[in-house]
Amino acid sequence: MSEKKSSNVVWHENYLNLSDRRELLGKKNKILWFTGLSGSGKSTLAIEVQKKLHEKGFLTYILDGDNIRHGLNGDLGFSAEDRKENIRRIGEVTKLLYDAGIYVLVCFISPYRADRQRVRELVGEDFVEIYVKCSLEKCEERDTKGLYKKARAGKIKDFTGISAPYQNPENAEISINTNNHGILESVKKILEYIKLDF
Amino acid sequence: MSEKKSSNVVWHENYLNLSDRRELLGKKNKILWFTGLSGSGKSTLAIEVQKKLHEKGFLTYILDGDNIRHGLNGDLGFSAEDRKENIRRIGEVTKLLYDAGIYVLVCFISPYRADRQRVRELVGEDFVEIYVKCSLEKCEERDTKGLYKKARAGKIKDFTGISAPYQNPENAEISINTNNHGILESVKKILEYIKLDF
Repeated sequence: MSEKKSSNVVWHENYLNLSDRRELLGKKNKILWFTGLSGSGKSTLAIEVQKKLHEKGFLTYILDGDNIRHGLNGDLGFSAEDRKENIRRIGEVTKLLYDAGIYVLVCFISPYRADRQRVRELVGEDFVEIYVKCSLEKCEERDTKGLYKKARAGKIKDFTGISAPYQNPENAEISINTNNHGILESVKKILEYIKLDF
Repeated sequence: MSEKKSSNVVWHENYLNLSDRRELLGKKNKILWFTGLSGSGKSTLAIEVQKKLHEKGFLTYILDGDNIRHGLNGDLGFSAEDRKENIRRIGEVTKLLYDAGIYVLVCFISPYRADRQRVRELVGEDFVEIYVKCSLEKCEERDTKGLYKKARAGKIKDFTGISAPYQNPENAEISINTNNHGILESVKKILEYIKLDF
């Protein structure tokens, strides 16, 4: 899906840019990209961080793998190729939301290093990669959505950790081990990194 | 591209919703969807309306056919099938931006009635369709991007108005004829509809 078919298009310069919007909001936004296995706690953490950001007056939005797959990426499956296209589109949407002034919290397994790297390069310096680390055993024990059980039974193919790979981040801005650390402690670590009082 | 491949996904309830964000911003956002031929004046109008909205403290964003085709929809061409997918994705992105609290201004030729109708149904009651009406002759005379010349020379295929159809809106909330009306007058008409003082 990388071929450019859109010839004959010309860039418009939008009258307003990100700086104008940040000035309007009185806030500087970032992108928090949560990556990790299913059940590692990405959405749980994002929801708690969002709460704190909102309390401080930041305009926030959570892009969630499960949610966006009902809409924009409803035509994509879970093969390596589809996952790549999934993350590519999500990267582009993240960029649009970020450019609109939103503090974006993105929760996707996003198992491939190269796919995450492409997003990082696309969106620039305000990209914060958060590795939500949790052992497969622990995730499988939680199995909040019952997906591991299905994957083990062979009812889901290409399931990350079972029948599809997860490539852990090597240079994530933040690493959180949810085996050992509770939600509050993990949220605190993120807020400290992004320099929010809490 | 309508087949749903994303099984095994579960809805997360985001902690915050649109009402929370509107409360934070102190503003109620809408979607202004500009449709019309290339060169009819969609982006010109949107940029001016955006300026006014921003002055009034609204957080705004322009989604532009030309811009988005470099990113999210860079893999799509101009066949009827690709145009449908183009508008489908843009509809989904519009919904996300709107849900994030943004006042979204969307400028796409969006030539097919059914495609626009699908977006209307997707995003709900705050959808305002603006038909930017302008004769083909006038648009071709302007030819701001030199595209009509190329299309007439057969260098661009599937060009709306020349070699691809445009289905005009039958129940647009606002119709503007840019043959007869100047920019300021047209902007005024839009601002009156959305009940902004100007």
